[in-house]
Amino acid sequence: MSIAPGSTLGILGGGQLGRMIAQAAARLGLKVQVYNDDPGSPAFEVAGEHTCASFDDRAALEAFARAVDVVTYEFENVPREAAEIVSAIKPLRPNAITLATTQDRLSEKRFLSDLGLGLAPFRAVDDLASLEAAVAAIGRPSVLKTRRFGYDGKGQVTIRAETELSQAYSEIAGAPAILEGFVTFEREVSVVAARSPDGAFAAYDLCANTHRNHILDVTRVPALVAPQTEAKAREIAATIAQALDYVGVFAVELFLVRNADGTEELLVNEIAPRVHNSGHWTDFGAATSQFEQHVRAVCGWPLGSCETFGEIEMVNLIGDDVLRWREILDDPQARLTLYGKAEARAGRKMGHVTYLR
Amino acid sequence: MSIAPGSTLGILGGGQLGRMIAQAAARLGLKVQVYNDDPGSPAFEVAGEHTCASFDDRAALEAFARAVDVVTYEFENVPREAAEIVSAIKPLRPNAITLATTQDRLSEKRFLSDLGLGLAPFRAVDDLASLEAAVAAIGRPSVLKTRRFGYDGKGQVTIRAETELSQAYSEIAGAPAILEGFVTFEREVSVVAARSPDGAFAAYDLCANTHRNHILDVTRVPALVAPQTEAKAREIAATIAQALDYVGVFAVELFLVRNADGTEELLVNEIAPRVHNSGHWTDFGAATSQFEQHVRAVCGWPLGSCETFGEIEMVNLIGDDVLRWREILDDPQARLTLYGKAEARAGRKMGHVTYLR
Repeated sequence: MSIAPGSTLGILGGGQLGRMIAQAAARLGLKVQVYNDDPGSPAFEVAGEHTCASFDDRAALEAFARAVDVVTYEFENVPREAAEIVSAIKPLRPNAITLATTQDRLSEKRFLSDLGLGLAPFRAVDDLASLEAAVAAIGRPSVLKTRRFGYDGKGQVTIRAETELSQAYSEIAGAPAILEGFVTFEREVSVVAARSPDGAFAAYDLCANTHRNHILDVTRVPALVAPQTEAKAREIAATIAQALDYVGVFAVELFLVRNADGTEELLVNEIAPRVHNSGHWTDFGAATSQFEQHVRAVCGWPLGSCETFGEIEMVNLIGDDVLRWREILDDPQARLTLYGKAEARAGRKMGHVTYLR
Repeated sequence: MSIAPGSTLGILGGGQLGRMIAQAAARLGLKVQVYNDDPGSPAFEVAGEHTCASFDDRAALEAFARAVDVVTYEFENVPREAAEIVSAIKPLRPNAITLATTQDRLSEKRFLSDLGLGLAPFRAVDDLASLEAAVAAIGRPSVLKTRRFGYDGKGQVTIRAETELSQAYSEIAGAPAILEGFVTFEREVSVVAARSPDGAFAAYDLCANTHRNHILDVTRVPALVAPQTEAKAREIAATIAQALDYVGVFAVELFLVRNADGTEELLVNEIAPRVHNSGHWTDFGAATSQFEQHVRAVCGWPLGSCETFGEIEMVNLIGDDVLRWREILDDPQARLTLYGKAEARAGRKMGHVTYLR
């Protein structure tokens, strides 16, 4: 398979990440076909073709796969069957193993642990009895998380000293879960990186992230960590990518912990097998945007330079924040990106601003 | 009329300029509808909606105008009737006066001359007798140009010492024309600028352009002219924009002439009432791309910063040049943009590369 400009990139999922991948692909002369189940998908607006169908519609998935040259995805919850249907017809990048590993917090934690990477202690929770055993082993505070479909803090309950375990368990509605040790971290950082089919690897500078209501609020680059920590983060990302035979851009979210002796340590929180919100700054702040980098990797093209331009701050526009658009346009240091979503609902990511200082 | 993100920008014309305007508009959260008569229009691929209809289809033009909030164009040969139909329903930016003035080389030259701007001598040519009179007045060498539809050197004949006037006249097929004095210029430069509905004006740094077979080949910024020349170019652009009550991005192509005393002088060659090939470098090389700047101006939003980042070289990819795409992707200083055109015909603009040094 050889993919050249003029070929068609298929994207599973139609949110803002798919939209920005589609825009980057078009800039490189690719045609784009987006597959999503929501007729109001932001990515539909910028793609030459789209399929609006359910992710369990086999005929639609097959027709989509036949119409494109290579398929990628913008969200990690692509159903396994959909991934299998598509990948039987055209290359799926990143691969189905990555989806299976990262869709389930337990398999992801086991994968990371098997690689010898540092992470918080964890135990599987399948019922109240195993929750009680897990809390006894890991202690309080700890965090109960559903194994599947959690994002932006959804599907999580913190187990504090006073928390009734039966109450916590009912809050996640008895879904398969894990209990994780509570990490007293100094900062949250992420590494956004890319890997090619031929194994080439490139990482952007480490990102320092702050959250508001469990949603990413601000990313700053450089992250101002020790040089060894920055190198360690890249090494962690490279190790994960190689183990998954990963193709495309991905992010590893990490906790930066300060040890008693003052040294920095990184614990892996989770893998995002896709372009990532903490990499949005690369669109104006790096030599190659993460979206173009993803397209390059997925197409088997040379990876671009990850050089950072200056000091960067990326601020998410959540809900009504987007009403500030005119004021942002008036700031010569601000670069505005909006996702074209009709309704500015509370907690909804509407766009972002990249400030170059 | 208030245009906000979520509104729809209508674009008349569907080539690469329309495509890049559409991409910039989508990034700012606008919906885009493109109108063009060619089903293979590059801009259709990146717009949420498009109308494929002739520019003399009144019903289609009216429906298009009703469906959008503001209309712009990506080529100066929008038929006058089409512009009138659309502008009767929705704001047309730039305005119809600009189209009428710049579609006809004679009216454009008269407009520039009336503003007191320096330009080569010119005379109207309507028949062989007036060509003979014009050559007698202006001398040889001089250039015979059709009044309408000329671009990239098309519709031009140079009148040299040995040129038979009847032969030259037949080469332009007896179309209404003008004769222009031949300018012995040192360099060709252009100024790309923007004006808002409220009269705000912003210009990018002067661009130095070289052509190959009458098609723009390379643009370099900075142009390395005298500071007074750079200031004069901005002043010329501001004068033209104000006189036309212009809204949007435009370019003024200028000849840089070296006087006998060594000073630099600028003669206006022509006005391009649209985003311009010599401004493509702004997409990676300036704080605000000309495409975003055009959208900002047309929507009545604040103009962005025109700051240049470093030394820039923009190289057009004409015809088979595009086959070098992989080599370009491998160059960390190169930023590649392709237009998604299917066939790399000779002389066809397929994309461009911006080098940041």
